[in-house]
Amino acid sequence: MTRSEAQVREGIERARRARPRLRDEHITMAHGAGGKASATLVDALFRPAFANPVLDRLTDAAVLPGGLALTTDAYVVKPLRFPGGSIGTLAVHGTVNDLAVSGARPLGLSAAFVLEEGLAVETLRAEVEAAARAAEDAGVAIVTGDTKVVERGKADGMYVVTSGIGRVELSGLDPAGLRPGDRVLCSGYVGDHGTAIMLARGDLDLEADVASDTRSLWPFASALGAAAGDGLRVMRDATRGGVATVLNELAMASDVGVVVHESAVPVRPVVHGACELLGLDPLYVANEGVLVAVVAPEVADAALAALGDLPGGEHAAVIGEVAAEPPGMVLVRTGIGGHRILDLLIGDPLPRIC
Amino acid sequence: MTRSEAQVREGIERARRARPRLRDEHITMAHGAGGKASATLVDALFRPAFANPVLDRLTDAAVLPGGLALTTDAYVVKPLRFPGGSIGTLAVHGTVNDLAVSGARPLGLSAAFVLEEGLAVETLRAEVEAAARAAEDAGVAIVTGDTKVVERGKADGMYVVTSGIGRVELSGLDPAGLRPGDRVLCSGYVGDHGTAIMLARGDLDLEADVASDTRSLWPFASALGAAAGDGLRVMRDATRGGVATVLNELAMASDVGVVVHESAVPVRPVVHGACELLGLDPLYVANEGVLVAVVAPEVADAALAALGDLPGGEHAAVIGEVAAEPPGMVLVRTGIGGHRILDLLIGDPLPRIC
Repeated sequence: MTRSEAQVREGIERARRARPRLRDEHITMAHGAGGKASATLVDALFRPAFANPVLDRLTDAAVLPGGLALTTDAYVVKPLRFPGGSIGTLAVHGTVNDLAVSGARPLGLSAAFVLEEGLAVETLRAEVEAAARAAEDAGVAIVTGDTKVVERGKADGMYVVTSGIGRVELSGLDPAGLRPGDRVLCSGYVGDHGTAIMLARGDLDLEADVASDTRSLWPFASALGAAAGDGLRVMRDATRGGVATVLNELAMASDVGVVVHESAVPVRPVVHGACELLGLDPLYVANEGVLVAVVAPEVADAALAALGDLPGGEHAAVIGEVAAEPPGMVLVRTGIGGHRILDLLIGDPLPRIC
Repeated sequence: MTRSEAQVREGIERARRARPRLRDEHITMAHGAGGKASATLVDALFRPAFANPVLDRLTDAAVLPGGLALTTDAYVVKPLRFPGGSIGTLAVHGTVNDLAVSGARPLGLSAAFVLEEGLAVETLRAEVEAAARAAEDAGVAIVTGDTKVVERGKADGMYVVTSGIGRVELSGLDPAGLRPGDRVLCSGYVGDHGTAIMLARGDLDLEADVASDTRSLWPFASALGAAAGDGLRVMRDATRGGVATVLNELAMASDVGVVVHESAVPVRPVVHGACELLGLDPLYVANEGVLVAVVAPEVADAALAALGDLPGGEHAAVIGEVAAEPPGMVLVRTGIGGHRILDLLIGDPLPRIC
């Protein structure tokens, strides 16, 4: 996996030439995977049609004049329940987290359910109650909702879509605001959620004790804001496409390079092992409770300490830094001193993960 | 259909004893139809779990402290395109209308797409562009979104969920605020949307020129607020379950009776004919551009004139009035002077209508 400097530069040029253009005539699973195909679909189809200054910022939540944040996420996770969580908890945390990483305190959530005819009412009840508990834990109420029913076979039990509004408390966050020397922080173990789903599906003939990390990230976001102040450049929720996708989006938005120290990335041994077996890189695996933050170098220690003091932040780490070169790209410095390019994901190794 | 006074009273008592209790073990299409089964599901399952003072008001949009309104709706209409509109236009208008009838000017929308693997990209593009046009016409931007993909067969091309935030401009609206003597207004022809969908499906061996009435109701809501002032009790968007369901919900919330004059309800002859053939009452058929308002008697003329002056409001009418008796029930006064009970819908005569 280690390449020479020349090979890396050639790869960079190749990747540049391959920037988004929608050639597909039909939707594939990859368009929902959060990687290159998803980005192309958004850039080539949604952005031109919905063009407006708020959408164009393409942050996790849209921030409207007056400091109101709005976000939405559809949840189609399979199976509905898995170690550490379920579609109901995920649907609350995911939307709370999109607000949180936008610096917005959640004010209220909506929940829309598309139910499959024949779904057991007890299964629905379990998810409604799971969502209610998750919302209560996150300190936010589900204030409105909708329910639709489709015929047998036309959904997998249920799909859930939540939206959230929040009040921006941490301003000045900007995905285009990264500067060389900035540090990249990660709030905890990487890859737990995707691995837990994979194991719950039985795709892997492996018994391992991995639970989803699904949790509200607002406590992390709020603590980082207090600890890093103006030195907090941006925060992201490393869901579909994982930490690698987040860092690629930030590198492109800021036109800077990001260098990740592979040995500094916190990964549980069992997650590492499962990913090896599947030929996956944990940096691409979805998380539901991992916050990635970029901070100015002078506040990095304080920011790391703030994360480490919170439940779930015990394994927070500085995993890399921002560099001037190569602009728009993410490199991983491997344990043996080489580099490899961490590009946007192509294809969909783990469909229906959230 | 005409009954004696005694029969009506007996029916009322029977209906009272049958108030919501969730006995079903599995979800049926009726749970998504907006009638009695939907109401039971909400009352027995969602409300207890999500219990909070905002949700408990059960208005079309939730109004948070500070006058912010939040609403969400899932769209699973089949077919995706039909005369007068498509899932993209519906998804914008439906959510704008939930804000509008809550007296809230729309500030921003979110749109989440659940796409079926294999969907033609051109079909998606058409709906994204239709949604964009509808949003522009309604004077609101789609500021954030999400896309997920599910395997072939796991959705009907696409499901769309939109949410909207708005700023409440018309305050004091209250579904529990109806008083005997108030007038019930309806902004236009009833039953067009559901009939157009039914015809587009080819369920009926009938060629008829009926188009969906899908439109933004904010101009109606805003004009009513100006014309009726404090005399405007409440507004509703008569979608799933139609005008009958709206009136039942209001009668129950206010513990008053509502009397509808059948001959005053505006229904196109072709819609009347199609409904006769299917054994449906146009009062139960879904609309996507019909506003129902209850106003104080002294402002009824001004309110009707305000609706009539707007494009799409040419057939607005006073269709009934509020009475002290029978509390919680809706009666229809038929052309020949009799009464029938207009109860909440049981079952789902028109599935996947929005």
